Amino acid sequence: MTPSPRELEGVASLQAVRQRSEALVAPLSAEDCGAQSMPDASPAKWHLAHTSWFFETFVLARWAPPFKPFLPFDAAYRDLFNSYYNAVGEQFPRAQRGLLTRPSLAEVMAYRAHVTAATTELLARHPDDAALRALVTLGLHHEQQHQELLLTDIKHLLSCHPQRPAYAAGCAPASPVGASAQALRWQAVEGGVVSIGHGGEGFAFDNEGPRHRVFLAPYALANRPVNNGEYRAFIEAGGYDEPAWWLSEGWDWRCRNALSQPLYWQRQASSATSSPTSAWAEFTLAGLRPLDALQPVVHLSYFEADAYARWAGARLPTEAEWEHAALAAGEACTGHFADAGVLHPQCPGSFDDSQRYGSVWEWTSSSYAAYPGYRPAAGAVGEYNGKFMVNQYVLRGGSCATPAGHLRASYRNFFAATARWQFSGLRLAMDD
Amino acid sequence: MTPSPRELEGVASLQAVRQRSEALVAPLSAEDCGAQSMPDASPAKWHLAHTSWFFETFVLARWAPPFKPFLPFDAAYRDLFNSYYNAVGEQFPRAQRGLLTRPSLAEVMAYRAHVTAATTELLARHPDDAALRALVTLGLHHEQQHQELLLTDIKHLLSCHPQRPAYAAGCAPASPVGASAQALRWQAVEGGVVSIGHGGEGFAFDNEGPRHRVFLAPYALANRPVNNGEYRAFIEAGGYDEPAWWLSEGWDWRCRNALSQPLYWQRQASSATSSPTSAWAEFTLAGLRPLDALQPVVHLSYFEADAYARWAGARLPTEAEWEHAALAAGEACTGHFADAGVLHPQCPGSFDDSQRYGSVWEWTSSSYAAYPGYRPAAGAVGEYNGKFMVNQYVLRGGSCATPAGHLRASYRNFFAATARWQFSGLRLAMDD
Amino acid sequence: MTPSPRELEGVASLQAVRQRSEALVAPLSAEDCGAQSMPDASPAKWHLAHTSWFFETFVLARWAPPFKPFLPFDAAYRDLFNSYYNAVGEQFPRAQRGLLTRPSLAEVMAYRAHVTAATTELLARHPDDAALRALVTLGLHHEQQHQELLLTDIKHLLSCHPQRPAYAAGCAPASPVGASAQALRWQAVEGGVVSIGHGGEGFAFDNEGPRHRVFLAPYALANRPVNNGEYRAFIEAGGYDEPAWWLSEGWDWRCRNALSQPLYWQRQASSATSSPTSAWAEFTLAGLRPLDALQPVVHLSYFEADAYARWAGARLPTEAEWEHAALAAGEACTGHFADAGVLHPQCPGSFDDSQRYGSVWEWTSSSYAAYPGYRPAAGAVGEYNGKFMVNQYVLRGGSCATPAGHLRASYRNFFAATARWQFSGLRLAMDD
Amino acid sequence: MTPSPRELEGVASLQAVRQRSEALVAPLSAEDCGAQSMPDASPAKWHLAHTSWFFETFVLARWAPPFKPFLPFDAAYRDLFNSYYNAVGEQFPRAQRGLLTRPSLAEVMAYRAHVTAATTELLARHPDDAALRALVTLGLHHEQQHQELLLTDIKHLLSCHPQRPAYAAGCAPASPVGASAQALRWQAVEGGVVSIGHGGEGFAFDNEGPRHRVFLAPYALANRPVNNGEYRAFIEAGGYDEPAWWLSEGWDWRCRNALSQPLYWQRQASSATSSPTSAWAEFTLAGLRPLDALQPVVHLSYFEADAYARWAGARLPTEAEWEHAALAAGEACTGHFADAGVLHPQCPGSFDDSQRYGSVWEWTSSSYAAYPGYRPAAGAVGEYNGKFMVNQYVLRGGSCATPAGHLRASYRNFFAATARWQFSGLRLAMDD
Repeated sequence: MTPSPRELEGVASLQAVRQRSEALVAPLSAEDCGAQSMPDASPAKWHLAHTSWFFETFVLARWAPPFKPFLPFDAAYRDLFNSYYNAVGEQFPRAQRGLLTRPSLAEVMAYRAHVTAATTELLARHPDDAALRALVTLGLHHEQQHQELLLTDIKHLLSCHPQRPAYAAGCAPASPVGASAQALRWQAVEGGVVSIGHGGEGFAFDNEGPRHRVFLAPYALANRPVNNGEYRAFIEAGGYDEPAWWLSEGWDWRCRNALSQPLYWQRQASSATSSPTSAWAEFTLAGLRPLDALQPVVHLSYFEADAYARWAGARLPTEAEWEHAALAAGEACTGHFADAGVLHPQCPGSFDDSQRYGSVWEWTSSSYAAYPGYRPAAGAVGEYNGKFMVNQYVLRGGSCATPAGHLRASYRNFFAATARWQFSGLRLAMDD
Repeated sequence: MTPSPRELEGVASLQAVRQRSEALVAPLSAEDCGAQSMPDASPAKWHLAHTSWFFETFVLARWAPPFKPFLPFDAAYRDLFNSYYNAVGEQFPRAQRGLLTRPSLAEVMAYRAHVTAATTELLARHPDDAALRALVTLGLHHEQQHQELLLTDIKHLLSCHPQRPAYAAGCAPASPVGASAQALRWQAVEGGVVSIGHGGEGFAFDNEGPRHRVFLAPYALANRPVNNGEYRAFIEAGGYDEPAWWLSEGWDWRCRNALSQPLYWQRQASSATSSPTSAWAEFTLAGLRPLDALQPVVHLSYFEADAYARWAGARLPTEAEWEHAALAAGEACTGHFADAGVLHPQCPGSFDDSQRYGSVWEWTSSSYAAYPGYRPAAGAVGEYNGKFMVNQYVLRGGSCATPAGHLRASYRNFFAATARWQFSGLRLAMDD
Repeated sequence: MTPSPRELEGVASLQAVRQRSEALVAPLSAEDCGAQSMPDASPAKWHLAHTSWFFETFVLARWAPPFKPFLPFDAAYRDLFNSYYNAVGEQFPRAQRGLLTRPSLAEVMAYRAHVTAATTELLARHPDDAALRALVTLGLHHEQQHQELLLTDIKHLLSCHPQRPAYAAGCAPASPVGASAQALRWQAVEGGVVSIGHGGEGFAFDNEGPRHRVFLAPYALANRPVNNGEYRAFIEAGGYDEPAWWLSEGWDWRCRNALSQPLYWQRQASSATSSPTSAWAEFTLAGLRPLDALQPVVHLSYFEADAYARWAGARLPTEAEWEHAALAAGEACTGHFADAGVLHPQCPGSFDDSQRYGSVWEWTSSSYAAYPGYRPAAGAVGEYNGKFMVNQYVLRGGSCATPAGHLRASYRNFFAATARWQFSGLRLAMDD
Repeated sequence: MTPSPRELEGVASLQAVRQRSEALVAPLSAEDCGAQSMPDASPAKWHLAHTSWFFETFVLARWAPPFKPFLPFDAAYRDLFNSYYNAVGEQFPRAQRGLLTRPSLAEVMAYRAHVTAATTELLARHPDDAALRALVTLGLHHEQQHQELLLTDIKHLLSCHPQRPAYAAGCAPASPVGASAQALRWQAVEGGVVSIGHGGEGFAFDNEGPRHRVFLAPYALANRPVNNGEYRAFIEAGGYDEPAWWLSEGWDWRCRNALSQPLYWQRQASSATSSPTSAWAEFTLAGLRPLDALQPVVHLSYFEADAYARWAGARLPTEAEWEHAALAAGEACTGHFADAGVLHPQCPGSFDDSQRYGSVWEWTSSSYAAYPGYRPAAGAVGEYNGKFMVNQYVLRGGSCATPAGHLRASYRNFFAATARWQFSGLRLAMDD
């Protein structure tokens, strides 16, 4: 069981999070773990190595350089597994990570064991070093982020195979027989000057703060995300062929790539006599399945989410609207997260009704930007978040691939408007 | 003399604005007017035709279809000079506008005369039709936007010629002998819940409203834009070689394009014995000139403006901060605009000290987005602004190429973060 | 009347060829002459200037540097109008020639007059200088090549305009009413050791020699080029959809560009009740016209010509086969050339039956390569031909856009296998 | 020991060739075998599978469809491992072969065992079926071609790793201490009408025939390939910076890719005090090594080979010149082939003096084209060679990575003019 947020520090958390990463590749071969299906995705092996590099670079190298067990495991890893920290040094080109057949998966596992053991020993040696504990905690949250990426990247890789192999049988169950769609209802939220952003105790990434005031006009949010049946209606109404619903750049992107459906949907050939539902199939981490109308639509770009909302006479919420509504609702940060072992969004009620946390990341209309007063951390770790604050849009709420305990109401995920391989869906909003 | 904002309606304004467009191409040959130097820029001839198409499509075709003088001037122009209005019909591919050698410049001028005359007659015939007057006013502001684009696009075209020809001799004077740099001072602004956006009387584009409340923390703005001397110091300090100052996407862009200076700067070959200032030259609409340290730096991308601000220990303002400060200062919307005939930013004092309006557009850190409650206009005109609200950044304040009377405190200009061919500079901000 | 090959030297030829270039742009505006529709094509103005640059650089600059009338007309032209002679200096980037709005067409015409006058004077002053006369003759043949390119480049430019404007009305007449297709007959040619290549008197480009022996197996050539009706049958038989007919690289190219017909063919919308012939239209220098089944098919790539030949159970000839057959036939080098004022290939009999010379360039299966013993000329002029001898295929026979008197049996034209904007067709060959 | 050409049929050859492929991957992990470093290269696993697919598709499926052991091993392999045979069916996209993590290497090995066993049984059952034996022989030669590609593709993959790992230690020995360069001598060859092409007994690919007559002028060939010391002199003389030596397309390619040395050469950082030789290192299948001046230069593109020859005052031979000289010399087809276990070209004398066969493939100036009378085989196997006969250049003689027994004097290898990852070098020629 993955620890809850406040526990994500200390040796027990370290062991649990590190083991969880390793458990994720258990269904995969070394070959699966080495391949890279597109520049945005990384091989699973690279995720396993990079998350170790993070501890080695930002924890072990800083606290224990002269001590023998903390010597670099392999000097070459410094560049090979550096993602984007210019202050640390060079980086092996991102788009070529699939070419790193050396070190092998077994060697990376040995690297992991070394880093976990050394970090464990370091924590034992400096039990009262708050800065050390803070960086270890950051490393654990960092590793949890890569756990989700590992799943989305493997999903993309498997989707490129004409046989659409499954990552794990049974991890994407259909809605129960007889289940019916939950009605869409609007939940009004009063506006005014409200506070958002991480304010207080517990871990948060630097981009979640400072806590600050914003002014919100009254608005309403839907009680649940948009589902496949609703999105299919958009497609059948010609939504992908009508530029009026699309942002101009989104329309160009859709035309250039000849898109007419979400990333992992595909029309079934023999649909003549079938029901409308069975005309579509969806690739999941359990392989190809009939589209389930009740489950949240997922793997949408910002452009598609925005176009759907416009067609539906609504809009996307801002991230402040999303966060304030979540805080106002006062719900615990629980829901359908990855520890359930179900790696596909489920219909409302399977885990909770509102699906506010977990299930699907929800696109907001907010461009990813610094909060007022934001300052990146000093040193190389300061490159973690701040330098990406341009041309990306914020997603909120976590997904079925997010580790339990990783999320908060103030959590800000962000991707380019064209990104579709994350577990990204949407919840409608409107002015009130 | 170009009319002031509140006068931009009626026949006199129509005549003045239309004539101003035609005056802009007086220094150019038909060949100059036909060429297109990059997909983002349009030929001058196309600007002249498209601004006429706008009146023909949104005014003449709507009010007077059965009346003979208002028949389409040429049915082919409907697609040829449609910029991006999908609801009107097809569009000739943007990147190929330079291939439209037909109609000739002379034919486009005849088209202009026809449209101006017919619109004049229509206004005379329906003196009390508010909707007509509103669309004519929109057409005039639209044409003013293209007047600025015509200048920036011609500047880019001429810059591609190895001889760096001038658009107009003398339109970019150097700072007076003996002038010295104005000291940079910070002007504190109190925050709180403030209102921004166009609220009331007079014309504004739909994207400037609705007027709405935002919460601002206290902040300070510089008293003037950054100048060439300051920006040169950034270059000489290695600013283009240090990733720490740059957004990640900006750094990649800078590396991919091997950039090391603003768009129109070039190092002078024989700089060994020269003063540092004379080591650089700048291409202007008056041709190549020695870099003038006192004048505002111009033709920066968002990425460069942001990197400079970070290096300077400051940041870009948000558009709400910019607008509120402008309103708080209570200055009239006057300054160095294009009607002065000086088509290059001048040192402070030449027109005014603060250079708040005119001179250079100032990048803000705000992604271009809909204001709360924003609704695009119904019909094809609704495509004017709303569909571009993604992956662009807002610039404020107008430039030396903006027609006088075109600007307002609430005016929102917007370009992609890589755009450099506009008269774009920056003013520093910081938390207070 | 354009002079015949053996006359292409001396002052009279100079005047005639220079005037012919200028006559070609008479139907065009300065705007037409300035535009560039693709990197492979050049603006008409550029052709006019470059052919003058050739005389200035290789004749005037060499014979008369100290003499005042021969000073550079404009020092900037040295790079602006250099096509590809690295030994002369830099070259303005080929793909941006459409941006050279300066010098104007009028200035280029003045440049032409200057160069023509100075060369005339030089010839008068050195009547017995064989090297001078040889270079002037080379310059005249060079200019004739550009006369053909000027027409093909203008045709491409006009084809990009949705209204498909004509270069000259009436220059592409239809076949006479009642004309019928000439039967395809095979003309056997005995092989053996034969000689090809320019051997003797009169001008030839360096790539046409040395004359040398080759061994040919017996073969047969068709009596005329493939016509539109035959090529349409290939299309209707699914020729563009069957990879078996295509070279692998050609098939990839066809798929990548979604090609299904020759460059300037277009299906007519309202073809339901029409005859098959009228289902297609073809863009010509006289504008869009119904496809004429009897006229030679033109504007084919090598890949299309080769695929057609394979489908027809035949093959393309080698250039040696083509040349030897032409010499064996003993026909005069006459036919449908550009001086006729008919700028589109005509049905056999309009000019001659065999259409061996003129009408359409005929793709051969020969890669453009040096003949045994080939040596480029010394100096910059040596860059004329030799450095292009890779990845291009030879075409033979001239076209309706080739100046009369320009061609010889040994003449080698060459283009990349994807090039379609030349007047390129094919004649079938087979083993005998 | 690999069988000689005439033995390459029957069960013993089948076993030997199939085992040789499997031995080639012995030094590699499953991860190494799955990666693809560029679209032109394939993963080692793909080579192992595709060569089995070839037997399954063209032998097993044709001779024994109803017989149980010959059922498709896996129906999905039909498309997955089809390289380019359109007549067989679809092909998995070439550039994505590195994404095929399924089937695993172990499964591919099982596929190989199945195919080898079934083919063995088929041969036993039909001992007198000449067509069967011919296709098995074709399959074996096909597999040998892929053995060489497997080595060149793995070399390219390993070269992308910053640590430059070796495929096999010791497989690229340096020249013996005290060895000196063999003097370059010219061997004159009389011309006339000669016959080339495969004429008679034994296996040959279809593209090697028919045997036919060509006319050759007298010429001379160098006694050995160009070596590293000679090529280094070309570099040091500025050969990569002087366009006069280069074909125009080659010069553009060199500039666009900023090339200044052969593919696997790299300048050594600390060369200040070193000897000129040690200023360069070369990546080999044994890892990075100091450049050995006496060994043949290898991994050149056609453009580089051609530029070197021009600089050296010589030229590349035609393929007819190469083949005729080889036949005239009357040497046995022996030399430095891959069975020696030395996977890098050695200095003359290590295997033989002339290095006519083996060592390095030698670029010829001949574009890859059909011989007179060439007809591809009927059916899908006809796609083997013919459809690639455009925009490629012929190489002759085999290399140190070619299986012994695979080559003949008439053997035609072919690659694009930019290809550098094969073991490609050159031998100079000149007119006599």
